[in-house]
This record gives sequence, structure tokens and C-alpha cells, in this order.
Amino acid sequence: MRTIKLTIAYDGTNYAGWQSQAPSLSTVQDAIERVLNRMTGETIRVVASGRTDSGVHALAQVVCFRTHSTVSPEVFLKALNGELPRDIAVLDAAEAALDFHAIRDAVRKRYRYVLNDGAAPDVFRRNYSWRVWPRLDAEAMHRAALAWRGTHDFASFEASGSRRLSTVRTVLDLRVARGTGELADLVTYEVEADGFLYNMVRIMVGTLVEVGKGRQPPAWAAEVLAARDRRAAGITAPALGLFLVRVDYE
Amino acid sequence: MRTIKLTIAYDGTNYAGWQSQAPSLSTVQDAIERVLNRMTGETIRVVASGRTDSGVHALAQVVCFRTHSTVSPEVFLKALNGELPRDIAVLDAAEAALDFHAIRDAVRKRYRYVLNDGAAPDVFRRNYSWRVWPRLDAEAMHRAALAWRGTHDFASFEASGSRRLSTVRTVLDLRVARGTGELADLVTYEVEADGFLYNMVRIMVGTLVEVGKGRQPPAWAAEVLAARDRRAAGITAPALGLFLVRVDYE
Repeated sequence: MRTIKLTIAYDGTNYAGWQSQAPSLSTVQDAIERVLNRMTGETIRVVASGRTDSGVHALAQVVCFRTHSTVSPEVFLKALNGELPRDIAVLDAAEAALDFHAIRDAVRKRYRYVLNDGAAPDVFRRNYSWRVWPRLDAEAMHRAALAWRGTHDFASFEASGSRRLSTVRTVLDLRVARGTGELADLVTYEVEADGFLYNMVRIMVGTLVEVGKGRQPPAWAAEVLAARDRRAAGITAPALGLFLVRVDYE
Repeated sequence: MRTIKLTIAYDGTNYAGWQSQAPSLSTVQDAIERVLNRMTGETIRVVASGRTDSGVHALAQVVCFRTHSTVSPEVFLKALNGELPRDIAVLDAAEAALDFHAIRDAVRKRYRYVLNDGAAPDVFRRNYSWRVWPRLDAEAMHRAALAWRGTHDFASFEASGSRRLSTVRTVLDLRVARGTGELADLVTYEVEADGFLYNMVRIMVGTLVEVGKGRQPPAWAAEVLAARDRRAAGITAPALGLFLVRVDYE
């Protein structure tokens, strides 16, 4: 028995998220397992570092699976990239410790959320950014977000109905910045933490957009955090602007 | 009677090109005319600065149409963006001289072609770049392309079967450059000219790729030009990497 670790990218637009659901719904997990099952003759179960919702993208999601097959990681990579649909790609494949677990062993994750405040619809980013209006004050958003750096109870930024044992997380890095040149209509929020609550990034973005539009002052972000109440925060930003950028392991 | 000039962007992936064809084929022209006909009650014919083939994209295509309607350009813009599919957008609408003609009056066009030589498939650019391997020497490609600056007979870069009166064109600007940072796997060819022959940019790219892969020296680009023979050039690069960047009028 071996454990193989894959780093994968996907465009989440045409999937009902990462995780297997009803057979009628197409998911990224199903697409990968279908190829692996055919290759190995086994019934393989692929575990990702975390589920992503329908429409959410991944630049470098980490997944793992166990197999009796003796196929090398390189051959898994080539076969998967040859057979997967064009909106899923394997970037790396490696042998992992037998007890490696993509969820349990993750120590840090980074997400990116892309906002688009151009005057006209952006046809090329229609599935990769949330279009908002009026124009955002990215600097005010950045100042607001700084209140969330460090270790805090992020209960205000958790979808209601979640049942995590703890809502305390440590945000290690975060920034809001407007692009330059051809990216001048994009405002990007990047956040890295030791873990994320369900919908945490999207609720953070829904909150920051209130500040960016001038409806709330930057200091409001600290108040929302202190409230520890989902109702204090902004809306949940739509899935399509969210990218899982990276997952780190010890 | 008035003439309205629109600047539009489109993702060509899901269209059989710009121009109306069989009713079973979806084209950008059909999509725009459908909305305009509904708005005005007229049978409107929209003319673009040039046709784009199936899969070719536009960052700023210019089109025009005549109408008896008294609707303002701003209202045309809003109504079109409200009703067009999300892969077509109107960036600008303006009143033009009654005899303005998007093809005849164009004095300059700029195209971009995006090559992708990353080791893994790029899921987010799968419809917006041509994936090539091995890695390209962008600098050698740039030196090669310089031979095409100025006024030349570009017959070698015209799809066979075309029947233009003259194959002489003036290339005003051109460059090949590799991106930096997250764009490091992209090599971009940009070219501006007073006009283009059919498939000219795509044949230029097919030729430059031979140089980029080291199969031909940079000086070969000048030989291909001098041959005035389509068979001397490289292949026609696929449509999906091509973008119409801009069309200029006096």
C-alpha cells in the first residue's frame, strides 16, 4: 500500500464543487477518481485538503489517495493530465508517507479573492471575479483587513449552521491591493491562515466590500470581528471570485 | 437615419466566429443583432472591422450599424450589456458620422497572440493560449520578428485561397516578450499593422514558434518573408490564442 500526493489546479466553473455528491452532479473528486479507478482497477478514494464549493477555483489544491498499484507518480501525473477534462490539471505528483493525510496534516492555507470594478463587464474574467460597483477604495479595504491579522475568534466570519469545535484561527498574512496596467480594474484580497472556517474568506470579502464602497469606515472590520456574530458581518461574496492558492504541510 | 459605433469585447470560445452563418451556428454578430432587432423593431445589420474566426477573441472590436431609432448610445450600451450573453460585452457606444464604415475606415489594427509553455496544462488559460513544448526562446523569436517591421509583401503569411488585390502591408509595431511573475509561462506576440491578410497573425506565430523551439535560426523569418510563398512559412497557429486588441480610425 502506498500514498500518493497530487497537487492539482481546477477551474471550478463547471463543477458542483470538489466533493462527490449525487451521481447527477459533476464534481472534481469524481473526475479524478474515475481516471484513477480505470488506471488501477481499484476503487480509489481521493481526499482533498478541504472541500471547495461549486464555482470555487484552485491554483494548487493538495489531494491524496492510497493504492496497491506500483505505478510511479510521474506516470500517474501523465495519465491523469491525458485523461482529465481540460479544466482540471495535475501540477505535481509525489510519493508521500503512508499515513499522510491531506486534511489533517495541512498547517497553512492561502486563498485569493478577485473583485472586478471595471465600468464594463469583463468577458474574460466573468467566471473568475465578482463584479462590484461603485469603484472600490482598495486602500481603505486593506486598512480594514489589518484588524484580522493574528489569532482571533472568527465566529463572525463563519457560515451559520457550521459546527466547528473552535472558531479561533490565526491569520498569518493578508492584504488587499489593486492591480496595475491591464489589471487596474481588479482588486485582490489574499489571506493566509492556519485554517479557515466555512465560507470565512467569502464573508470577509462581503465585509470588506462594504468598506470599499464607503458604506462603512475601515474601523468597522474590527467591530465585526469583536461581535463574534455572523449577523454583524457583510454578505457572503459569490463563489466565482475565490481561488485556493496554496496548501502547506510540515 | 443614424450610424452607431460600438466597441465590444468577446470571448470567442463558444462562437463560430464573428460572422453570421448557418442558423444552427452561434455567432457574435447574430447575438448582437438579435438584441438590436428586439430593441428597435428593425432588421439591423451590424458590420465589424473584420471577421474573427471561431475561437478568436476580441478585447476591443469595433462594429457599426444604422438605425432609424432615436435611442441614445448610452441606452444601447446598457440594454445590450443587460441582454447579451456574458461572453460578449459592449465597452463603448457612440454616435458616428452617417457614412462611417467599420471596415473601410479602419486605418490600423493590433493583435495579440498568447503562447503558453508551462510544464503543466493551464486550466485557466486553456481557451486563451496555445500550449507549446519545449520551452520557447522568446528573445530569439523577438529578433526573428523584427524582420517583418515595415512595408513588405506578406504573401507568405496569407492563407492559401485568399484573393486580396494586394498582399503588401505595413507592420508598424511588433514584439515578442515573456511575462514575469505569475505570467512567466506566457510568451506574447503583439503586432500592429495598417491591415492584415487572412490568417496572417496565426501564420506569423506558427513561424515564430519554429524559431522559439530552436528548429530554425532567427534569420529564417526574413527568408520566409522573402519567399512570398505560404509553403515557406510555419503552420497556422490555432485560433484560441488570438486576440484582436484594438482598431484605430482617423
